[in-house]
Amino acid sequence: MEFVNKDVVMVYDTDYQGVAHYASYYRFVTNALYAFRNAYLDDLVEKYGIWFVIAESHAVYKKPLHAGEKIEVKITPKLLSNKSIRFDFKIYRSEELTTEGYLVQVAISKESWHSVELPEEIKKILQ
Amino acid sequence: MEFVNKDVVMVYDTDYQGVAHYASYYRFVTNALYAFRNAYLDDLVEKYGIWFVIAESHAVYKKPLHAGEKIEVKITPKLLSNKSIRFDFKIYRSEELTTEGYLVQVAISKESWHSVELPEEIKKILQ
Amino acid sequence: MEFVNKDVVMVYDTDYQGVAHYASYYRFVTNALYAFRNAYLDDLVEKYGIWFVIAESHAVYKKPLHAGEKIEVKITPKLLSNKSIRFDFKIYRSEELTTEGYLVQVAISKESWHSVELPEEIKKILQ
Amino acid sequence: MEFVNKDVVMVYDTDYQGVAHYASYYRFVTNALYAFRNAYLDDLVEKYGIWFVIAESHAVYKKPLHAGEKIEVKITPKLLSNKSIRFDFKIYRSEELTTEGYLVQVAISKESWHSVELPEEIKKILQ
Repeated sequence: MEFVNKDVVMVYDTDYQGVAHYASYYRFVTNALYAFRNAYLDDLVEKYGIWFVIAESHAVYKKPLHAGEKIEVKITPKLLSNKSIRFDFKIYRSEELTTEGYLVQVAISKESWHSVELPEEIKKILQ
Repeated sequence: MEFVNKDVVMVYDTDYQGVAHYASYYRFVTNALYAFRNAYLDDLVEKYGIWFVIAESHAVYKKPLHAGEKIEVKITPKLLSNKSIRFDFKIYRSEELTTEGYLVQVAISKESWHSVELPEEIKKILQ
Repeated sequence: MEFVNKDVVMVYDTDYQGVAHYASYYRFVTNALYAFRNAYLDDLVEKYGIWFVIAESHAVYKKPLHAGEKIEVKITPKLLSNKSIRFDFKIYRSEELTTEGYLVQVAISKESWHSVELPEEIKKILQ
Repeated sequence: MEFVNKDVVMVYDTDYQGVAHYASYYRFVTNALYAFRNAYLDDLVEKYGIWFVIAESHAVYKKPLHAGEKIEVKITPKLLSNKSIRFDFKIYRSEELTTEGYLVQVAISKESWHSVELPEEIKKILQ
């Protein structure tokens, strides 16, 4: 399963070196995760009262991105365990791979903040 | 009453134009308000269970700021009403006034999110 | 002339109070300005080698916004002088006005950073 | 070699979940790198006309951080190659390790944006 989100590098993503600041790339990935969840998981997340928290983030920066550039963020979700999901991401400018990495998300209970098992309905979507 | 907070313009405050992004100046002001509250109000805010929310923000940008520049943020709190405080701010680089403006904060109840009267103890500090 | 940009409040726009951080609203306005420039001004800005810098920002916060809420940012550009443009903005959640304010932008030369007169072609678009 | 920077989690670092947003941790690390460079490298960086760009970022989030919490960011720089430095980081709240990871920085020429060898004077400091 692969999910693609189109995005644009904004002026506030850049810094005085003229290109996107390294931490801004996580904004692009967050946007893609939001779009993915919005498309597939929002109702289930609501139904089961779970939240996701980020347990790990990783990015390798291959090519700098500039303000105004159009990008595609491709994410590939994978079940990592009964409680966690890994989202591999690749950021493309046209056909060029500019950045890649991953996020690990863990499901927690909104109330206790303890990790919880992912409901079967969510696991099915991620398989 | 005037309160001064020393700060530094960071790389993530700037954008590709090479100077601080206009919205980043509010980060400097937020930092100064935090330092002011930390010095004078934290115990009282805790005691009375109030939160502050921003009701208005305003900034006039006179001189651009660059990454690494040391600044002084001077804030002058004033009671605006029984429920709100206005913080005038001025941002200096050495003797030079670079930015000025104000924030208006309203006291609310953490529980109801309705505006509440500022306790006398807090008003006294602000007078 | 009125220009409308659709947007979404993202998780990184919010803070621990559970609603959008006051400075994040300027991100929504920056997005709307970007969309406006992209639609009307990009070629001219390129042709004349001008940049815009923000000279003033102002916002009045009427209603809090939450993560995931869909908003419409309406901007109304007005020539303020031969060198500057004022963008009044209003942020709506459905029919509800949540925020309003304005930005003032000044045209500068990319090279000298001095303010420059707006080309007639740009003025015409803004009238 | 270990370098420690004291910092505070600010309200704008948090999101509606009530704790620091995962990308904000890179702000704490950026602050620590800035303090390190300010203490050891600024003159040399100026002298040799080099810039640093981030080639890789990684963080493992063990414990959530809240607004107002005081933290210590410990960074350990290591030469990774003739052109790149790895900064391992650990973020502590009192004695508790909350976050760890690393950044890789590559030296580039300001003019060409090509990677360049680190000057001996800089290598010596990092050894």
